[in-house]
Amino acid sequence: MVHRLDFHVFFGDCDEAGIVFYPRFFVWFDNAFGDWTRILGLSQRSLREKFNMYATPIVDAGATFRSPARYDDLLSVHAAVVDWKERSFRVAYRAMRGDTLIAEGFEVRVFVRKDADGRFKSAPVPAAFREAMS
Amino acid sequence: MVHRLDFHVFFGDCDEAGIVFYPRFFVWFDNAFGDWTRILGLSQRSLREKFNMYATPIVDAGATFRSPARYDDLLSVHAAVVDWKERSFRVAYRAMRGDTLIAEGFEVRVFVRKDADGRFKSAPVPAAFREAMS
Amino acid sequence: MVHRLDFHVFFGDCDEAGIVFYPRFFVWFDNAFGDWTRILGLSQRSLREKFNMYATPIVDAGATFRSPARYDDLLSVHAAVVDWKERSFRVAYRAMRGDTLIAEGFEVRVFVRKDADGRFKSAPVPAAFREAMS
Amino acid sequence: MVHRLDFHVFFGDCDEAGIVFYPRFFVWFDNAFGDWTRILGLSQRSLREKFNMYATPIVDAGATFRSPARYDDLLSVHAAVVDWKERSFRVAYRAMRGDTLIAEGFEVRVFVRKDADGRFKSAPVPAAFREAMS
Repeated sequence: MVHRLDFHVFFGDCDEAGIVFYPRFFVWFDNAFGDWTRILGLSQRSLREKFNMYATPIVDAGATFRSPARYDDLLSVHAAVVDWKERSFRVAYRAMRGDTLIAEGFEVRVFVRKDADGRFKSAPVPAAFREAMS
Repeated sequence: MVHRLDFHVFFGDCDEAGIVFYPRFFVWFDNAFGDWTRILGLSQRSLREKFNMYATPIVDAGATFRSPARYDDLLSVHAAVVDWKERSFRVAYRAMRGDTLIAEGFEVRVFVRKDADGRFKSAPVPAAFREAMS
Repeated sequence: MVHRLDFHVFFGDCDEAGIVFYPRFFVWFDNAFGDWTRILGLSQRSLREKFNMYATPIVDAGATFRSPARYDDLLSVHAAVVDWKERSFRVAYRAMRGDTLIAEGFEVRVFVRKDADGRFKSAPVPAAFREAMS
Repeated sequence: MVHRLDFHVFFGDCDEAGIVFYPRFFVWFDNAFGDWTRILGLSQRSLREKFNMYATPIVDAGATFRSPARYDDLLSVHAAVVDWKERSFRVAYRAMRGDTLIAEGFEVRVFVRKDADGRFKSAPVPAAFREAMS
């Protein structure tokens, strides 16, 4: 399953060169993930209610930037889970402007609970979560 | 004329209380303005090409926050120019979630040119710009 | 009492014109407030522990931008509470580069508790908070 | 040569879990690089004046997050160039809170010129730049 989030690049996303300031791509990756889970009823807030899971923090992330994007560009971020482990999963992202690949990247997310003293502890990926996003 | 920009609030827009970190509203106001001018062919980049104007920097901005917005909310920002002066104009914004007013605010923007030594100098609002956005 | 936060403007704070993207000033205002309360042991986290207060969300904010700031500039944000009300207070900010006034602004903050169903409710300013910041 | 940038984590850097929203680390990596080049007189603006180079855009970036950071934490980002190529270089970053490793990451940056039609073209690393940062 691939989720797609479409959006325009705005002026405030760009730096002095008029091209996207690269950390914005990680925000957009996270946004695409959040958009996807919201539609499936599995957003961070729902995870707590449904699975007593706190969130899916990122332990590893990276991106390769292929072609510059400028404000007013229409971008599509495509997200797909490409690897499931017991307590983590890897999401692959591709940012496209039409047929042009702008950036590709990934996030490795873990599941965590918050224990009694407020610390985060890793936890198994809920089966229902895995099934919905596969 | 009123321009409307619809978007979801994302996890990264929110703070520890799970509600929008307020400077994001100003980003969204600027985004709504940018979206509007893009559609009219009058974005910052076009202003330079068409009118030899550098940009429309903000000299004054403010907002009142009426009701909290949380991630996964669908917001609509409505933008309208409510006052035209010779060298500046005032844009009023309202952020709504359905019928609920979330925030209202404004920006006063000036027109500037970049002179030979790289300094910004105020300039009259181009008539075609005013006409298109009225 | 005036609190001062010094910092450099970074590349990512600036837009295509090489000047600060204006919502950043509101981030810096909030940062100056956060820096001040941290030093006094009254940060958002401490408010909960000490006063059972959730946070101090912003209900009103504004700024006037006097002179552009560029990356590599050293800015100082000066913060002072200029008005105390029973359930809210007004913080005034000035951003300076040396003797040059770059921006001035304000935030009106309220105190809130989180009630049993997770909603925010206004609450009186704790006397110890007011005393520490006056 | 290692450059260090110290700063506090602010409320607005954090998400609903009260921990840093991960794209902020990439902003801080970029800030550390910008701080370093500013001190050496080699910031993006200076590159244009001294070497007719436009900037050093990022083609590849990544990070591993070892331990959560929360607002009010004092972090130090350490930056060092770990690989020089003819037209690019790799910067390694480590974010520490005292002796605790919070995150480590990297950026691969290229040198570009802006040619007559406004497009970016890769260019050799200036020898003086390499020497200053080694």
